[in-house]
Amino acid sequence: MGSFVGYRCSICNKDYAPDEVQYSCPHDGGNLDVILDYSTIKKTVTSQQIFQSTEASLWRYLPILPVGEPGFKDTPFHRAGDTPVFATSGLGKEFGIQKLWVKDESRNPTASFKDRASAVVVARAREILAEVVVTASTGNAGAALAGMAAAVGQKAIIFAPRTAPPAKIAQLLVFGAQVILVDGNYDSAFDLTIEAASEFGWYCRNTGYNPFTAEGKKTAAFEIWEWWETAGKKFSDNHNLVVFVSVGDGNIISGIHKGFKDLQALGWLERMPRIIGVQAAGSAAIANAYFMGNEKIIPVAANTLADSISVDFPRDGVRAIRAIRETNGTYITVEDEEILKAIAALGKVGIFAEPAGATSYAGFVKAAQNGVIYSNDTILVLNTGSGLKDVKAAMQAVQEAPIIEPSMEALKHFLERTNG
Amino acid sequence: MGSFVGYRCSICNKDYAPDEVQYSCPHDGGNLDVILDYSTIKKTVTSQQIFQSTEASLWRYLPILPVGEPGFKDTPFHRAGDTPVFATSGLGKEFGIQKLWVKDESRNPTASFKDRASAVVVARAREILAEVVVTASTGNAGAALAGMAAAVGQKAIIFAPRTAPPAKIAQLLVFGAQVILVDGNYDSAFDLTIEAASEFGWYCRNTGYNPFTAEGKKTAAFEIWEWWETAGKKFSDNHNLVVFVSVGDGNIISGIHKGFKDLQALGWLERMPRIIGVQAAGSAAIANAYFMGNEKIIPVAANTLADSISVDFPRDGVRAIRAIRETNGTYITVEDEEILKAIAALGKVGIFAEPAGATSYAGFVKAAQNGVIYSNDTILVLNTGSGLKDVKAAMQAVQEAPIIEPSMEALKHFLERTNG
Repeated sequence: MGSFVGYRCSICNKDYAPDEVQYSCPHDGGNLDVILDYSTIKKTVTSQQIFQSTEASLWRYLPILPVGEPGFKDTPFHRAGDTPVFATSGLGKEFGIQKLWVKDESRNPTASFKDRASAVVVARAREILAEVVVTASTGNAGAALAGMAAAVGQKAIIFAPRTAPPAKIAQLLVFGAQVILVDGNYDSAFDLTIEAASEFGWYCRNTGYNPFTAEGKKTAAFEIWEWWETAGKKFSDNHNLVVFVSVGDGNIISGIHKGFKDLQALGWLERMPRIIGVQAAGSAAIANAYFMGNEKIIPVAANTLADSISVDFPRDGVRAIRAIRETNGTYITVEDEEILKAIAALGKVGIFAEPAGATSYAGFVKAAQNGVIYSNDTILVLNTGSGLKDVKAAMQAVQEAPIIEPSMEALKHFLERTNG
Repeated sequence: MGSFVGYRCSICNKDYAPDEVQYSCPHDGGNLDVILDYSTIKKTVTSQQIFQSTEASLWRYLPILPVGEPGFKDTPFHRAGDTPVFATSGLGKEFGIQKLWVKDESRNPTASFKDRASAVVVARAREILAEVVVTASTGNAGAALAGMAAAVGQKAIIFAPRTAPPAKIAQLLVFGAQVILVDGNYDSAFDLTIEAASEFGWYCRNTGYNPFTAEGKKTAAFEIWEWWETAGKKFSDNHNLVVFVSVGDGNIISGIHKGFKDLQALGWLERMPRIIGVQAAGSAAIANAYFMGNEKIIPVAANTLADSISVDFPRDGVRAIRAIRETNGTYITVEDEEILKAIAALGKVGIFAEPAGATSYAGFVKAAQNGVIYSNDTILVLNTGSGLKDVKAAMQAVQEAPIIEPSMEALKHFLERTNG
């Protein structure tokens, strides 16, 4: 925490002291990057010490995070992060790619990537003695905040549009969060959250708007780096690492980029991986701006079955474009049909992804087919959430099961017809 | 694997060589216990060596399992087990219990305890070169088999009654399993599975019927023991450990009992923990037999919202009764309403359980209220599955969220009415 020295606006580059601001830039509303003092970090810890840590969560990277030791060992709070990287080269070969890995974020406590952001935001909330953490969310971010807050006994309030699926709301309520449904859309819930936080002194977790969300999300980059240094690199001829990330509001890809930049600044990252952002074609505001060659995000009327990345107005678009530009990456858009195929492909190797989670894999397939990546690149695809979050979509990804009479005769007849 | 020396029938005590039988006792149909040669195991490994293993899965206990090194590192297959034990003493204090822990099996790859059984059965299937693994299941066991089989590229066929919820079937299909719906009930699917396995040389995973399911499930006991020896015991005055387990067909509790018996035979377990089985009152065939004082399981017409333990005819009842008798435990039955309350209680500390998973906690509450356990006992409650598996039940466990206009005025009005 001694290394947390301030914020820098991603638009005007103005610096602020830690106590000077809390959320976005007061000058132009730009999202803030957390500034760390890398020389202090390097005095505290070496990369080898991190590799040797026995902490099986994102808290193994505490020296590179802008919060202090949060406590709450032996709770789900200390199980966020440390997600597995699975070898899936069998899948890659079909597309001429030799080294393919999937980092499975569905293994987080509330079954999505968002636990990373919520864990770090909750840690920050405890430090500033916030009574309440509040967020606008219809899905994974809300579940993650509710779950992480419950684990440490922190009060959480979540605003969601009244049209949110009751099944998604149920999880927030089970975690004991106070849920308030708003008779309006996501944007009106988002705005009300900010206003309420300001009025009541609540701490606002809203994605992108709160600089600590990206700080939590960057821990995925730390884990990719640690995996690369201790395992992945060994299997690679050319040390080219390409990371595929699904993109909705742009905060995950921005956070991952920030993580790699931190490591580079520390001198711990040999070469910046290429980051490739994948958006659903029906929700591609960031990809659109990227292809237009500028940073101007024009809202869309989002329409994709990948609900976790279905976003009209991305809240972290500018940094999400830079994550690609500064790493020699690109954006790729995929249709819902390709996303459904990706769910089935990942399922066949034992990974059950929600549509937004499989979107990155759909982007990988397209990239391989279009020559965006090379056969001896090492590819790491991020699955951001569990298929159990959206079983309806899974049902669309597969063919219905046949029905037979419960007899050997019927079974034999069926097997003859289908298997051979 | 060198320690696997045969089977013993749980009814007639007859022994069989490893190659002599495959499933239940040919003599009386009794479930078979796997016999291990403990002296061979003790020559291979010490408890301290196990504690120092870096393998973060149930495969850290390989020397005490009846299978050889299965391979498939870096796949979900090597992520079964190694589930966290969460400190939840805050919950326990309400009931006068000082030390309460929850072991969260929802953190398994397919989000339930059943991955343990399926991982070990799939390992066995590879060893005997089975082309197909087959099982009857409507839920977690099927998902676990499908997921573990997908992870290693093993063909799986799953029979389910046609009345099974399409959402549960979707997960099996996503994992690439061949699903065949049977126009009949679970029992007819079960019987057809056995007949088909015999006819086609498929390997049958059916719970209890296949001796390797309990061998997989016993790894939870190994983890409880390892946690107890390396952590839990330190917080305990009297070294009394009581384990609460939800019971449906009886195979989980039997497997856990087998695990503790293995450890005792190895001389590694100081004192047998008390095991307390918890059944839903509407599906209590095993508890009924226990209270009648015999081992005669009389089928019931099961009716509980805890679908994963809703069982007319338990397939492992006899051993499930002994697990309690031989450990000075007891059975407890709980109503569906108590199960719903347990879901909400666990949620408040960040653990999202399905009804069957929360049943053990409901049993703990009742035990504490009825003086079945003591205030300075150390209590470990097993949550066997994720709440994401049954969001409908979660919706019943909580109160609906209120709806307000998206304005500060409406918000203030609401907060005044409710919070203050």
